[in-house]
Amino acid sequence: MSKNLTSREEDYSKWYNELVVKADLAENSAVRGCMVIKPYGYAIWEKMQAELDRMFKETGHQNAYFPLFVPKSLFEAEEKNAEGFAKECAVVTHYRLQNDPENKGKLRVDPNAKLEEELVVRPTSEAIIWSTYKGWIQSYRDLPILINQWANVVRWEMRTRLFLRTAEFLWQEGHTAHATKKEAIEEAELMNNVYADFAENFMAIPVIKGVKTESERFAGAVETFCIEALMQDGKALQAGTSHFLGQNFAKAFDVKFSNNEGKLDYVWATSWGVSTRLMGALIMTHSDDKGLVLPPNLAPFQVVIVPIYKNEEQLNAITEKANTIIKALKSKGISCKFDNRTTHRPGAKFAQHELQGVPLRIAIGPKDLENGTIELARRDTLSKEVIDMTNLTATIQNLLEAMQTDLFAKALKFRNSHTTEVDDFETFKKVLETKTGFISAHWDGTAETELKVKELTKATIRCIPLNMTKEGGKCVYSGKPSKGRVLFAKAY
Amino acid sequence: MSKNLTSREEDYSKWYNELVVKADLAENSAVRGCMVIKPYGYAIWEKMQAELDRMFKETGHQNAYFPLFVPKSLFEAEEKNAEGFAKECAVVTHYRLQNDPENKGKLRVDPNAKLEEELVVRPTSEAIIWSTYKGWIQSYRDLPILINQWANVVRWEMRTRLFLRTAEFLWQEGHTAHATKKEAIEEAELMNNVYADFAENFMAIPVIKGVKTESERFAGAVETFCIEALMQDGKALQAGTSHFLGQNFAKAFDVKFSNNEGKLDYVWATSWGVSTRLMGALIMTHSDDKGLVLPPNLAPFQVVIVPIYKNEEQLNAITEKANTIIKALKSKGISCKFDNRTTHRPGAKFAQHELQGVPLRIAIGPKDLENGTIELARRDTLSKEVIDMTNLTATIQNLLEAMQTDLFAKALKFRNSHTTEVDDFETFKKVLETKTGFISAHWDGTAETELKVKELTKATIRCIPLNMTKEGGKCVYSGKPSKGRVLFAKAY
Repeated sequence: MSKNLTSREEDYSKWYNELVVKADLAENSAVRGCMVIKPYGYAIWEKMQAELDRMFKETGHQNAYFPLFVPKSLFEAEEKNAEGFAKECAVVTHYRLQNDPENKGKLRVDPNAKLEEELVVRPTSEAIIWSTYKGWIQSYRDLPILINQWANVVRWEMRTRLFLRTAEFLWQEGHTAHATKKEAIEEAELMNNVYADFAENFMAIPVIKGVKTESERFAGAVETFCIEALMQDGKALQAGTSHFLGQNFAKAFDVKFSNNEGKLDYVWATSWGVSTRLMGALIMTHSDDKGLVLPPNLAPFQVVIVPIYKNEEQLNAITEKANTIIKALKSKGISCKFDNRTTHRPGAKFAQHELQGVPLRIAIGPKDLENGTIELARRDTLSKEVIDMTNLTATIQNLLEAMQTDLFAKALKFRNSHTTEVDDFETFKKVLETKTGFISAHWDGTAETELKVKELTKATIRCIPLNMTKEGGKCVYSGKPSKGRVLFAKAY
Repeated sequence: MSKNLTSREEDYSKWYNELVVKADLAENSAVRGCMVIKPYGYAIWEKMQAELDRMFKETGHQNAYFPLFVPKSLFEAEEKNAEGFAKECAVVTHYRLQNDPENKGKLRVDPNAKLEEELVVRPTSEAIIWSTYKGWIQSYRDLPILINQWANVVRWEMRTRLFLRTAEFLWQEGHTAHATKKEAIEEAELMNNVYADFAENFMAIPVIKGVKTESERFAGAVETFCIEALMQDGKALQAGTSHFLGQNFAKAFDVKFSNNEGKLDYVWATSWGVSTRLMGALIMTHSDDKGLVLPPNLAPFQVVIVPIYKNEEQLNAITEKANTIIKALKSKGISCKFDNRTTHRPGAKFAQHELQGVPLRIAIGPKDLENGTIELARRDTLSKEVIDMTNLTATIQNLLEAMQTDLFAKALKFRNSHTTEVDDFETFKKVLETKTGFISAHWDGTAETELKVKELTKATIRCIPLNMTKEGGKCVYSGKPSKGRVLFAKAY
């Protein structure tokens, strides 16, 4: 199998698709639009899950599990939400197969096993969860409810890409219920901040916090907070969203509570989620033409040791040394793999670990044993040096920390140099096509302008940044008055 | 809400159903046969998952994720497996809803969005996984593949009960591929041993390891290893299964490998799983008429502290003491919750923690502060004593360990006293109805006898124990020759 990737410059999209498959992260399955997440890719997702789960619990949330299916009558209860997802729903209509009388050995749907009411495979769980919360909430004493769910969801997308857009994907969805509007908005903001913290400090991906325009809002939300990242090809990627749902779902499912004065009111809601799409963001932020580059926090193993030997005696001596190193690293919480496969030569191993983004690679040969040295290669910079074995653990610990920081700094530098203030539409179009990236420009606040810009340039408003400076200006497209700059970009 | 449960003696089945709901473990959902797993129940499941996942990884397995849907043509490829599950499949036939022209505000299935090929919601994943493995396996170098998946599955059961039998349930399913028959059988046995180890040493549930008879075997398996537990009502519960699948799936999906002599052969397979059904086993093994009893290993929090106070000053002093205790316990890895809710009186808190099976309860009042004591209550024995605060952490640590051991010993004693050797059919029927439990009896090895016994008594052969003494005898029903005793019981 050739490990050579198409370069990013040649064809960014092809580079991505090849990398995902060749680095053993995921592949397409026999089911249209659904992926198989392979062990190496899944191990990275598990690291993300563990950290997010810790952060959710630290902010007072508990996990629970709600049904995969949503009866159609519940699904349609919140009209905007239903309308937003109706066009991409997998629908279960029958509950049995039977032998096909016309095709021996084949099965067919049993026409007598039609469900009275169709079941939608959840594209998101607000409907099933709020129909459940109705039974849990009577009084303010029952609030807040702070629940998260790790689950699979299905959205029948027509054009799919591994991790970025798949018919089935894995995610977490938080669904909270509150007594006051203020508390619900604070929760939605808090979780958007948790996502930003996770993206920046754990995934080393700089993000812009903002809110969506009405047309980009989650179906059924009053306000959608989001974090937006910039990929190496200058396209934006929405990495997480947190919705203030107002009382929309409480009204749709008649969920009321009596407040501490005994008055009945509808409950306030939020929902928030990130998905396996983050794998796509991770890959496209840091990786290079040699393959995956992983921030040390997310690497299934952070260090790999490759023995270079000609005979068994040498291998034994190297193995002994490797075990000492592994033990020392493990005691500091650093994961290390000894790649002693006899089926591959060192060169092939090097190439594979580069392709799979192992942060640090140690090579040990007989001369190293004599000299008390090792060869240490760093994946992000591709630099290599022979270093003394003394203080190796501390050296590695420092290097891993430096890589985590450096990757963030590099991505931030890229984003900053690809964020352009623009004041006229000709420049807007030119920057979008040549320089790419985020365009910070004035907008008149209307959906018409937003749509027109999208039709003409394919750029959308990624967000109205939370830290937007309130400055008067003229809309980059219509010339009408604007209250501040928003971020436009082409997006995944 | 009344916390009083129906007693086990009065109505065991009702006791179980009430306990699951009142202890906040799970409840029925708006979707027929599907449950909502509530935060407290899910926290227990998470503890099980974490420990099992650790054990799987320790035995060399990796996690991955395969699609929720199985195209019908793949589903039907392994005939026995398809036949076994066809009657209980949820089937997706359409991928879109549309506005119902006859019902404003309602949706209907879009007749133009019919799938060319129906998709079965996975009842188990052998088909989709072996169709994937075909692309992964060419040579013996690609073997073994040792993969596990944590997932939801759907089996359209007609009669459902929370945790024990639900249309959707959560589970893990291991799917391994091997070069030799011997290795695959060893893997199936190994994982059955892992399950037994987990059940006994983590869940405190004694189990019998055995193999299933042909009629009770997994559809598509050559041999099904299992662990069988005994519930307090004398009915057996299959707690986990591990299947040696032979080359059945490799043949159905044409998965061949070249061995180290370059010869092509079909790959050998295993699969193994445990599910949220274990929650049912846990509840029915240890709990009592006051509610849930949890082995300390599985308790979301192992200790709860309830303050007894009349004024804020007292509460403040108790809080200070509680924080010291919590910190000391935490340093020993013991989880502890301070229940300082002002909405409930101590008595109500005691009842709730008893109902929810918190292993140890500490009560602290003003007198305790004066005397340097606390009141410590043990959930399994319902014993209570005032003890000196000195060495509290060590006392608690010892008590938790003792509870874990005692619960297992108690369950083992129950099982031993409810396992009866029987040699004639009249006694068989009588023991089954009056004493209940496992019946160890000779069986002639035929499916006819097995079926006849089931029809007459509702008892099935739970397993042929792996440690069965090979002794000649006469079948308890037919009188024909038998090679050893098997275990009969009524079962969940």
